[in-house]
Order: sequence, then C-alpha cells, then structure tokens
Amino acid sequence: MTTAKIDGVSVTTQANVYFDGKCVSHGITYPDGTKKSVGVVLPATLTFGTAAPEIMECVGGSCEYKLAGSDTWVHSGPGDKFSVPGNSKFDIRVTEAYHYICHYG
Amino acid sequence: MTTAKIDGVSVTTQANVYFDGKCVSHGITYPDGTKKSVGVVLPATLTFGTAAPEIMECVGGSCEYKLAGSDTWVHSGPGDKFSVPGNSKFDIRVTEAYHYICHYG
Repeated sequence: MTTAKIDGVSVTTQANVYFDGKCVSHGITYPDGTKKSVGVVLPATLTFGTAAPEIMECVGGSCEYKLAGSDTWVHSGPGDKFSVPGNSKFDIRVTEAYHYICHYG
Repeated sequence: MTTAKIDGVSVTTQANVYFDGKCVSHGITYPDGTKKSVGVVLPATLTFGTAAPEIMECVGGSCEYKLAGSDTWVHSGPGDKFSVPGNSKFDIRVTEAYHYICHYG
C-alpha cells in the first residue's frame, strides 16, 4: 500500500532541483514541525549524500539503490522503504521514474 | 511578495512529470476541495495546453511566456501572475528555472 497523499501539511512552493533536474522535490512541514519532502528521480544513476538519516519511501515507479559500503543493488518499488544513515551516501539508478517521500531523522 | 508556502493542504505524493522532466509538479488540494499545483519548469522552450483556465503565479526564478494568438514574449518574475484561457495554449521559455503555483478555474 503506497501513501498517495499527505493531509494537513504546509508545502514549500519553490522546488528543490538536484542534478540538473534529474531529481526534483518539494518540502512539506507537518503541524508539529516535522519536515519531509516529496519528490521524483528521473532516469539516471546518481549518488546522494545525507546529512540527517533518511528513510526513502517509494510511492510510485521504482529504483535500485546501493548503500555506502555495500556492493549490492537492491530493488525498491511502491510501498517499499529503505533507510540511509546520516553523514553517508547512496547510489540510486532509475530507468523510468522513482516517486518518493523522504522522511528525515 | 511571493507565496513561499501554502498551509493546511493535502499533497499528492506522486509527481506529474511533463516533457521528459522539463516540468515537474505536485498536486495540492485545499480543505474546500480546490486543487492547485506547485511545480518548476527547467531550462527549455515548451508549449503547454490548458483544459481549464489557469493562473500561473511565479514564486521563484522567471520565465517568458507567449499566449496563443500573441506575438509578444512577456517576462514573468517572482510575484507576477499571468492568466491563460481554458482550451488554449501558451509557449514558455525558461533560461534558469521557473517555480510556480498553478491556480485552476
């Protein structure tokens, strides 16, 4: 079951554009101050760095990801989540599109 | 003055991806059912068609647009809005990025 919508939040109108537009996200803030983002990665192979720990939740499409220190690409599809430590990085490769919610902390 | 955030709305988690990612938006729904979208157009010259009338509000960056039947490119920057009739189209050219809110109806 994927999370199709998120209710009762504040949306930052300006998008975050990474890697020349291969990743675009919009920030959302919950009433309690919790911040997340909703975004999409377009076909590409990219390396993302993390500051805070992140949980990536797939809400559409799919990707393969490889965490720092691992040699294994892992598939992630709708409803799947994966965790990335803080101050780390991960590789992601996408062949169609990967729609996600990024949960921090 | 630009609209930096929109409070108390529901966000559709899956992005709308147009023109191979040259335009990416997320839908938002207000408690009264009003639908809008927040998005970004990346550097490109594109032609958008409209179904319902739209008001495009710039919240960051800029574009030039040309409405159907016009020969004039018009600049639109932060805080500017322009209206597009329903069942029409407009050309847009962007050299950096154009962040927008699309109001329908």
